[in-house]
Amino acid sequence: MMVAVKDRVRFVETDLMGVVHHSNYLRWFEMARVEYLRTANVLLPDLIADGILFPITEVQCKYRQSAYFDEMIRVEATLADFSRAKLCFAYRVVRETDNVLLAEGTTQNVFTDDKGRVIRLPQLYFERIEAVRQAENGGVA
Amino acid sequence: MMVAVKDRVRFVETDLMGVVHHSNYLRWFEMARVEYLRTANVLLPDLIADGILFPITEVQCKYRQSAYFDEMIRVEATLADFSRAKLCFAYRVVRETDNVLLAEGTTQNVFTDDKGRVIRLPQLYFERIEAVRQAENGGVA
Amino acid sequence: MMVAVKDRVRFVETDLMGVVHHSNYLRWFEMARVEYLRTANVLLPDLIADGILFPITEVQCKYRQSAYFDEMIRVEATLADFSRAKLCFAYRVVRETDNVLLAEGTTQNVFTDDKGRVIRLPQLYFERIEAVRQAENGGVA
Amino acid sequence: MMVAVKDRVRFVETDLMGVVHHSNYLRWFEMARVEYLRTANVLLPDLIADGILFPITEVQCKYRQSAYFDEMIRVEATLADFSRAKLCFAYRVVRETDNVLLAEGTTQNVFTDDKGRVIRLPQLYFERIEAVRQAENGGVA
Repeated sequence: MMVAVKDRVRFVETDLMGVVHHSNYLRWFEMARVEYLRTANVLLPDLIADGILFPITEVQCKYRQSAYFDEMIRVEATLADFSRAKLCFAYRVVRETDNVLLAEGTTQNVFTDDKGRVIRLPQLYFERIEAVRQAENGGVA
Repeated sequence: MMVAVKDRVRFVETDLMGVVHHSNYLRWFEMARVEYLRTANVLLPDLIADGILFPITEVQCKYRQSAYFDEMIRVEATLADFSRAKLCFAYRVVRETDNVLLAEGTTQNVFTDDKGRVIRLPQLYFERIEAVRQAENGGVA
Repeated sequence: MMVAVKDRVRFVETDLMGVVHHSNYLRWFEMARVEYLRTANVLLPDLIADGILFPITEVQCKYRQSAYFDEMIRVEATLADFSRAKLCFAYRVVRETDNVLLAEGTTQNVFTDDKGRVIRLPQLYFERIEAVRQAENGGVA
Repeated sequence: MMVAVKDRVRFVETDLMGVVHHSNYLRWFEMARVEYLRTANVLLPDLIADGILFPITEVQCKYRQSAYFDEMIRVEATLADFSRAKLCFAYRVVRETDNVLLAEGTTQNVFTDDKGRVIRLPQLYFERIEAVRQAENGGVA
């Protein structure tokens, strides 16, 4: 299943070259990742309350076209790889008005306890995420 | 006593008008505030470990001149008002090369426990900050 | 007239005290200000294309309650003072679920040419903004 | 040649997991990249004034250890690949106190005119950067 969020490019997200600063795409990826997990009823504050952290261990992004202030963008997330040890998302950022691809990328995160030791995701959370991963797409949120 | 920090304007801190986005000055204020407290040997991680939080309750800033990418800036902090209930800093941001004033502002913060209830700063920390406040300036850090 | 935008608190907007960093409220103010001007059909890229810049000259914010990750917030903007020389907005940030006031503040901006010289807003733009200012509220966008 | 910058982790760079948000490493990479180019006497405002933009087309980062508030970090940049068509930097972020590797990554950027059309870097700038790339390391800046 693919989960998407839409947002409008903020003024503060631009830089003096007149386009969105490349670091902000990672923040947009995060919005889509959070929404994906929300769809699975996995809320990050619940994980943290259970003593589970989820640090990003790897990220990559290819930038295809610039994004500009005030444009509506859509960020799509799919789960590319998933086990109780790690979570790998793939993302596409598209301009909402004409579906032009602006960027695509991936993130990987692991799960750790609050001492930073790697742990396995509890079965309850695993099953919720797995159910969404296997679901057919019922339309973009 | 006045405590100052210097830094170089980051590319990401600019916006499409070609100057530093106004929200970043609050982040620069924070760097000077942290440095002031460090001078007093009051480290924020120690406060947090002691269960003391220090939320900002008020901020104001007047912008005098634009700051540009790659300029060296100096942020000066002085303690304008101080009790065991609150901490009020005054700041000046100046361009390092010619001492032109770019912005000036103030912040106020209180102290709370981790439930958000207002508390009084423990005497130990109070005395350390008070000692720096009363010290003559021995030069800019 | 009051114009509002809604958004969800981003993970990246929090800090190690577990709440939204105070500097982000200025960025939320900006989103509401942009939306207000859009309602008036005043688009910032058009102003820039006309050689008109609109630097923030003053900002103040009082923080009432912390905002937390993933909460829906609503940012309301009204025009507090307006002439062809300056634009003063007042803002309220409320938690969408229960309308609790999180912060309130103001910004002032002037208009300049691309050399930074203060100018007066052209009549066309002035009239559009004035029309929205005087309009009765027809509901929150 | 390797060029490095040092900085202190800002409070605002942390998130509610208590560590630096992963997107900020791209901003740190940028500081080192800017410093590398400064060492070559290639100033980004000069490029822009010459109508040359330098959008990032690709970035990747592997995160090894968390960075914490107030730590001193050192960001090292080397030029991994370089032609008049593109610039590829490799970075290492280390904790200054004990040289522990926190993250490593790469960026690629191309050169474009202000219409976004890919161009070749003028010979003057090329030679300056090439001279630094070939230079032996004379110590960290």
